[in-house]
Amino acid sequence: MKNAKFIVVEGLEGAGKSTAINAVLETLKQHSILDVVQTREPGGTRLAEKLRALVKEEHDGEELHDISELLMMYAARVQLVENVIKPALNNGQWVLGDRHDLSSQAYQGGGRQISPEIMTNLKRTALGDFKPDLTLYLDIDPKIGLERARGRGELDRIEKMDISFFERVRARYLEAAQQDPSIITINANQTIEQVAGDLHRALQVWFDNGQAVA
Amino acid sequence: MKNAKFIVVEGLEGAGKSTAINAVLETLKQHSILDVVQTREPGGTRLAEKLRALVKEEHDGEELHDISELLMMYAARVQLVENVIKPALNNGQWVLGDRHDLSSQAYQGGGRQISPEIMTNLKRTALGDFKPDLTLYLDIDPKIGLERARGRGELDRIEKMDISFFERVRARYLEAAQQDPSIITINANQTIEQVAGDLHRALQVWFDNGQAVA
Repeated sequence: MKNAKFIVVEGLEGAGKSTAINAVLETLKQHSILDVVQTREPGGTRLAEKLRALVKEEHDGEELHDISELLMMYAARVQLVENVIKPALNNGQWVLGDRHDLSSQAYQGGGRQISPEIMTNLKRTALGDFKPDLTLYLDIDPKIGLERARGRGELDRIEKMDISFFERVRARYLEAAQQDPSIITINANQTIEQVAGDLHRALQVWFDNGQAVA
Repeated sequence: MKNAKFIVVEGLEGAGKSTAINAVLETLKQHSILDVVQTREPGGTRLAEKLRALVKEEHDGEELHDISELLMMYAARVQLVENVIKPALNNGQWVLGDRHDLSSQAYQGGGRQISPEIMTNLKRTALGDFKPDLTLYLDIDPKIGLERARGRGELDRIEKMDISFFERVRARYLEAAQQDPSIITINANQTIEQVAGDLHRALQVWFDNGQAVA
């Protein structure tokens, strides 16, 4: 319980990540963990935010190739991990991330169908053995999630993808959660209150087990 | 002789790449090759030029990690190869590049000492089997090259590196030239006229051999 931990919230557009992050912060507060560094990906440093903008913007119709997108995501991730996340953890501060590497596995690996070999090599190159202690994956039917996201306004380049893209993303998330015990799946098709309750209970179990799942 | 070719000029800062490119264009003209697409790396597309700027700029003191730099270089390269170089070649246009992948091998692999395994994996991920038909490497003593580059004005982030960095870059260039017959080394410690003469002769031999070296 002494060491600071890195917790990540993951999920499709409209899964309720922002609400979930607030619920996690609330639970951490109940455990007297008040000094929490919050991150978002891609982004979270000056340079990483500029890369985020490049990935999301249009460039006068220039096609952004899947591999370029992936390389930019990892460049941003390296900056965030090395300049923000690791220093915070070394400093005893907990880190709560809005997305992390699992998003690349799901969106670029699952959604864009980049080969597992490329995904594995790049992850090792960029991150080595670094990974979150706990990932809370908010699982939602893409049809429901995208409808919620659309209700919020304009969609970006990724959010404009076909529904089958998001089905593949979801499948990869669920596959990862099945293989990795540090990823906990939360049913995000429920009401906000139910999701918050599930998150609280999942975190409670994790704390009670001395973060045994991580 | 029917197919369009991709020729690259490589070398350290101050090696005289711009002058060499003009000399190459002149020789190509003598062979009735007038429709030449010129590229520079990193850069050469809207997005790639933005990545070039991010690599060269300072970001309020944020450290740019070697791996991030490398990933951004490759993201820019994928955009250039897929959106500019391959379409030009397919369209029968020759391409003349101011730097290409060998720069990454030399600067990031040699200079920054990123492992050969990472360099090889990333190159294969980004480029597959794509490579220039001919590379003209302008070999110069870094002391002479940097003095010339300094004479031109402000130095960027990379040009501010220590002399030992450039010695490693040069060593990697020379090593590559020894292993790959499609890389021709030109002595760039000579006068501009002598270098232009050597370039012309090297290209002449290449043409006479039906580009046998490539």
